[in-house]
Amino acid sequence: MSEVKMIAPSVPNVPWQDPPADLKKGQPPVWRYSENPIIGRNPSPGVARIFNSAVMPYGDGFIGVFRGEQTNGVPYIYLGHSKDAIRWTFDEEKIPFVNEKGEPFMPRYAYDPRLVKVEDTYYIIWCQDFYGASIGMAKTTDFKTFTRLENPFIPYNRNAVLFPRKINGNFVLLSRPSDSGHTPFGDIFLSESPDLVYWGKHRHVMGRGSEWLESVKIGGGAAPIETSEGWLLFYHGVSGTCNGFVYSIGGAILDLENPSIVKYRCETFLLTPEEWYEERGFVPNVCFPCATIHDPDSGKIAIYYGAADSYVGLAFTKFDLIMDYIKSHSVLTGDDTEIGIR
Amino acid sequence: MSEVKMIAPSVPNVPWQDPPADLKKGQPPVWRYSENPIIGRNPSPGVARIFNSAVMPYGDGFIGVFRGEQTNGVPYIYLGHSKDAIRWTFDEEKIPFVNEKGEPFMPRYAYDPRLVKVEDTYYIIWCQDFYGASIGMAKTTDFKTFTRLENPFIPYNRNAVLFPRKINGNFVLLSRPSDSGHTPFGDIFLSESPDLVYWGKHRHVMGRGSEWLESVKIGGGAAPIETSEGWLLFYHGVSGTCNGFVYSIGGAILDLENPSIVKYRCETFLLTPEEWYEERGFVPNVCFPCATIHDPDSGKIAIYYGAADSYVGLAFTKFDLIMDYIKSHSVLTGDDTEIGIR
Repeated sequence: MSEVKMIAPSVPNVPWQDPPADLKKGQPPVWRYSENPIIGRNPSPGVARIFNSAVMPYGDGFIGVFRGEQTNGVPYIYLGHSKDAIRWTFDEEKIPFVNEKGEPFMPRYAYDPRLVKVEDTYYIIWCQDFYGASIGMAKTTDFKTFTRLENPFIPYNRNAVLFPRKINGNFVLLSRPSDSGHTPFGDIFLSESPDLVYWGKHRHVMGRGSEWLESVKIGGGAAPIETSEGWLLFYHGVSGTCNGFVYSIGGAILDLENPSIVKYRCETFLLTPEEWYEERGFVPNVCFPCATIHDPDSGKIAIYYGAADSYVGLAFTKFDLIMDYIKSHSVLTGDDTEIGIR
Repeated sequence: MSEVKMIAPSVPNVPWQDPPADLKKGQPPVWRYSENPIIGRNPSPGVARIFNSAVMPYGDGFIGVFRGEQTNGVPYIYLGHSKDAIRWTFDEEKIPFVNEKGEPFMPRYAYDPRLVKVEDTYYIIWCQDFYGASIGMAKTTDFKTFTRLENPFIPYNRNAVLFPRKINGNFVLLSRPSDSGHTPFGDIFLSESPDLVYWGKHRHVMGRGSEWLESVKIGGGAAPIETSEGWLLFYHGVSGTCNGFVYSIGGAILDLENPSIVKYRCETFLLTPEEWYEERGFVPNVCFPCATIHDPDSGKIAIYYGAADSYVGLAFTKFDLIMDYIKSHSVLTGDDTEIGIR
């Protein structure tokens, strides 16, 4: 192990597979699970596809919030359970969100959920209709009662990711302002809140890249992993082609106390669509990371990503390898290293 | 006078002109100043056009913040002074914004300023670059030191308008989320803040209309005028044509304590481009209200509006007439009357 430390609770049962013998030299040190996709088509009654979903350890197993595209085309969030974080069972009913009075308060639709634990509470963050695509949030302590919080932002916004601990006493949220459509632009911003009601001190974190790989837009992916060198962020970066967008997984390391400052940003993809389940589907050519399960003792990191808006894929890396790779392939642009206010 | 009251400080010297004898029956009770435009081309050294600007009473005269388009095409905000609110003189230097340490902190550009007094402080709210078009804010008590506040929102946003008093203890701000370009959509939202640092409790106020007049987008205009029946709001509504957008002035009355609820919304324009200075200019066909000067004793209301992104125009109405007109021509859509959360 290097001297760089991952700062996170131990998870001895991270799902894992050693790297294949033929992992190519010079390629990013991220390898797919041999049995991918781990969630296939029609996984649950009335649900055609599950993808872009987030999981974490819970009890003696794992729990997750899953984007389930109903057979009528409308996405909602479903709860899922697993013993090994690979084979999942799903609740047939949508997560029953309530308002602060305990009354039913369902979003019109909900997609791309993230799941993050801060102190003793679990937070679900997703994209929903708020007279336009915007961020929804809810909290739970028992995965039975899911209480919605105030929408943190006005539209239009997607890809909100909460940090797993407060920084300087405030909750910190990444998000990606967007437009009302498929958004041919997009940078990652950061916002703070003392109470999850009011948000401010907004800062620009990272811009879309100037080069081909992610020159259309980027967006937060998995909840950042705390390390002694900064916050390890797996995000998505989008390339534009004559036949549509291509979503790859990128990596960056943000300053620990001022995470609007990017310390390292990998100029290459970490994973890009190559396999059939990434290249074929409802939206071809998408690798969209939403969560990691990671263990500081072994350095194992399992990356959960949506594949082609149709499947869930699982990929692996080792902490030392990925930190070294990102640092040794880092190219920063001017915007990245700013504190991010204008 | 009707029983509806305007709740505002007396302004005995509102600029004024009685309605012309030929004010047409059935037309909106808003008439232009006969000497319009009150600010013409090349009004100040290095400034090609002044428009979309806000004014208010100050001392024994009037003060204003003016969008000045420099001869290099970049807009900034300039301070202006007037004895009669019609003939204006402008500072040659841009307003010198500073940060909380008193250090220079100029936006890259700044446009469409509004000026609102809340309690003992004057607030300037404008649109600026924050890695994308977004809202900037500053405060002053003496019009000498202008201290910027945190940007209230992440991009993309324009047309922010502060209410002239707190509601339920919070500052209240209208804004119009947009995209990174000329934004072919847009509704008015409302946000609250206890401290002008953190903003939340976002609510949808009004959607663009379903009919032709403002079916592209709408945006807050002048700071709302408090009345016993609700907040009188002059806003802009945009129609789309094969040759571009057309900006008219619309009117609505918002609930006093829950201003995300629209009580009345006028289905006709109050003023629409007809005169040469509204139809001709850098952006033809724009009437864009940014401020009123109004007096509860006489019921006089003077509306300041940008004309064709090239001039400042002045129009007049009487409080009773405009309230009656808006109420008798009100057509509400479903979205308008909601509390505005999803």
